[in-house]
Amino acid sequence: MGKSNLELVKECDRFPYYQDDPAFYTAHLENYHRFKVSGCDAVLGYILNSVVEKFPWPADFWAVDGATRTVTLVTGADATPAQRSRQVAQTLAAAVEQGTFEILRGWRDELYPIYGPGGEFLLEMERSATPLFGVVSYGIHATCYVEDNDDDDDRGLRIWVPRRSRTKQTYPGMLDNSVAGGMSSHERPFECLVREASEEASLPEAVTRANARAAGCVTYCYVRSSKAGGETDLLQPEVEYIYDVRVGADVVLQPGDSEVEQFHLLSVDETQAALARGEFKPNCAVVLIDFFIRHGILTAENEPDFLEILARIHRRLEFPTASHAAN
Amino acid sequence: MGKSNLELVKECDRFPYYQDDPAFYTAHLENYHRFKVSGCDAVLGYILNSVVEKFPWPADFWAVDGATRTVTLVTGADATPAQRSRQVAQTLAAAVEQGTFEILRGWRDELYPIYGPGGEFLLEMERSATPLFGVVSYGIHATCYVEDNDDDDDRGLRIWVPRRSRTKQTYPGMLDNSVAGGMSSHERPFECLVREASEEASLPEAVTRANARAAGCVTYCYVRSSKAGGETDLLQPEVEYIYDVRVGADVVLQPGDSEVEQFHLLSVDETQAALARGEFKPNCAVVLIDFFIRHGILTAENEPDFLEILARIHRRLEFPTASHAAN
Repeated sequence: MGKSNLELVKECDRFPYYQDDPAFYTAHLENYHRFKVSGCDAVLGYILNSVVEKFPWPADFWAVDGATRTVTLVTGADATPAQRSRQVAQTLAAAVEQGTFEILRGWRDELYPIYGPGGEFLLEMERSATPLFGVVSYGIHATCYVEDNDDDDDRGLRIWVPRRSRTKQTYPGMLDNSVAGGMSSHERPFECLVREASEEASLPEAVTRANARAAGCVTYCYVRSSKAGGETDLLQPEVEYIYDVRVGADVVLQPGDSEVEQFHLLSVDETQAALARGEFKPNCAVVLIDFFIRHGILTAENEPDFLEILARIHRRLEFPTASHAAN
Repeated sequence: MGKSNLELVKECDRFPYYQDDPAFYTAHLENYHRFKVSGCDAVLGYILNSVVEKFPWPADFWAVDGATRTVTLVTGADATPAQRSRQVAQTLAAAVEQGTFEILRGWRDELYPIYGPGGEFLLEMERSATPLFGVVSYGIHATCYVEDNDDDDDRGLRIWVPRRSRTKQTYPGMLDNSVAGGMSSHERPFECLVREASEEASLPEAVTRANARAAGCVTYCYVRSSKAGGETDLLQPEVEYIYDVRVGADVVLQPGDSEVEQFHLLSVDETQAALARGEFKPNCAVVLIDFFIRHGILTAENEPDFLEILARIHRRLEFPTASHAAN
């Protein structure tokens, strides 16, 4: 008896819901400070109290209010994203120098965007620091699959599944999605997909552009466990833009960098068995479950937790999120 | 400038969210009583206070507690669904006799199921009464479409869109989904689809069984407006199981009963224009928006409210929901 699909979803969507137990939820929030920037009413993330205590907050950049449990990045009224980002970068540099946080030892040298209401770009922040602030991060996940005959029973399709390098910093040796990666500032979802597919899976740009189809997104509120590395209990709300990439049997996915050990072409049954054994990285399990639902493989009639799963993998996050539509 | 997709979603998903404004949400809940059955902790629906005041609650069946704003169907510890359903039926019969509620003049003579935690079947209730109790109702919606060439740009597909009869009780003359209908007690989603497709669209059972593909569900929390008929502000949380039915150009959908005036085969552009003009019944708009997202027609790059839309049309309802998986 392996893990159920709902158990897999719950490993990823771990932050409590108000409606399940208002008293517990309200008490749980007391473990966090709200992260805000001056001039913007919205709460951008939740910072664990233990992180707030350890952080060397330069007083000229930050206001920490213990009474309202709020940490505010203080800027002038006409501050630009570049100014806010510089203040955060200086704060993080001090924390790195003092060795305050284990998670910052995994410094990625990639900048992740943070948005305000209406998708306004407010600032960018080193990727490895985003869980310290509990801000929303963005990525793309694609399922590359082969389908020999085009009947309506998609159980016959096969999915390209990579195994992560055993030396990778996070989730070493676990199974992953065909193509997956984080979106840096100023990157848009489809272009991120094209880049990652080429880098990680050696998928030629022309194949991705011709065969990829946008299919929505999954959203959930992850809370970091020891498997993720670094401090635990940090909040990590995530948005993953989803693509289906149907490829011909002649297309072979291959590791394009050292992050992937090897690609395997798995049947639906083999993929579901690996899911039940807990072999997939948690958020990859969620993306595959969404794929199986959209393709009629998981249905109301064969998945007992169908409705709970669909709602949880499309969680309405408590923070403002991005808008990538050209205006 | 027509209605945006988010505006269409908001016409359907109208109940406030705690996270948007906790104080407003908490105050808003004071307009409702919780509906419970004895022996079950879960809240099954919200009953508008004005409905609680008008309802002729037989004291031997019901406990109305103004302090906790709770209406409880009182039964013995070993009550069966049949017993609970009988008590509710007698209560409704008295309300009909006294002409208490306008909405009950639309009596449907169909029984809708109400579930407890874990999908336990608790009771069934006349369809037209369910908004009085604010309980979750269930239905199926299918999008029947023709796609001449199987390229990845689905903009070339055409959708079968019916116009509702001008004499229909609810939403007369509005556009609808190819096949849509409510699920009665003991009915399961796929069989409901097959029945409705035959009754409403003259789609032969064999065509539906061969071509329909389950594709998830949409969930939202409707609050009844005057367009829905009867009392307004009643809560109507809904689950719609979603199917895509790709049919050949030789298949022609035709009204099978008096509920549909005529079917039209609309292009994506024509469908989107009709949506923006507000011509679709609200929950049908939501189903089409979900279809467009899953088919790569609405994407993060062309829909500014992509993330908010996806979360709201997969709302995690505040009440227990069904499980239709065979055990």
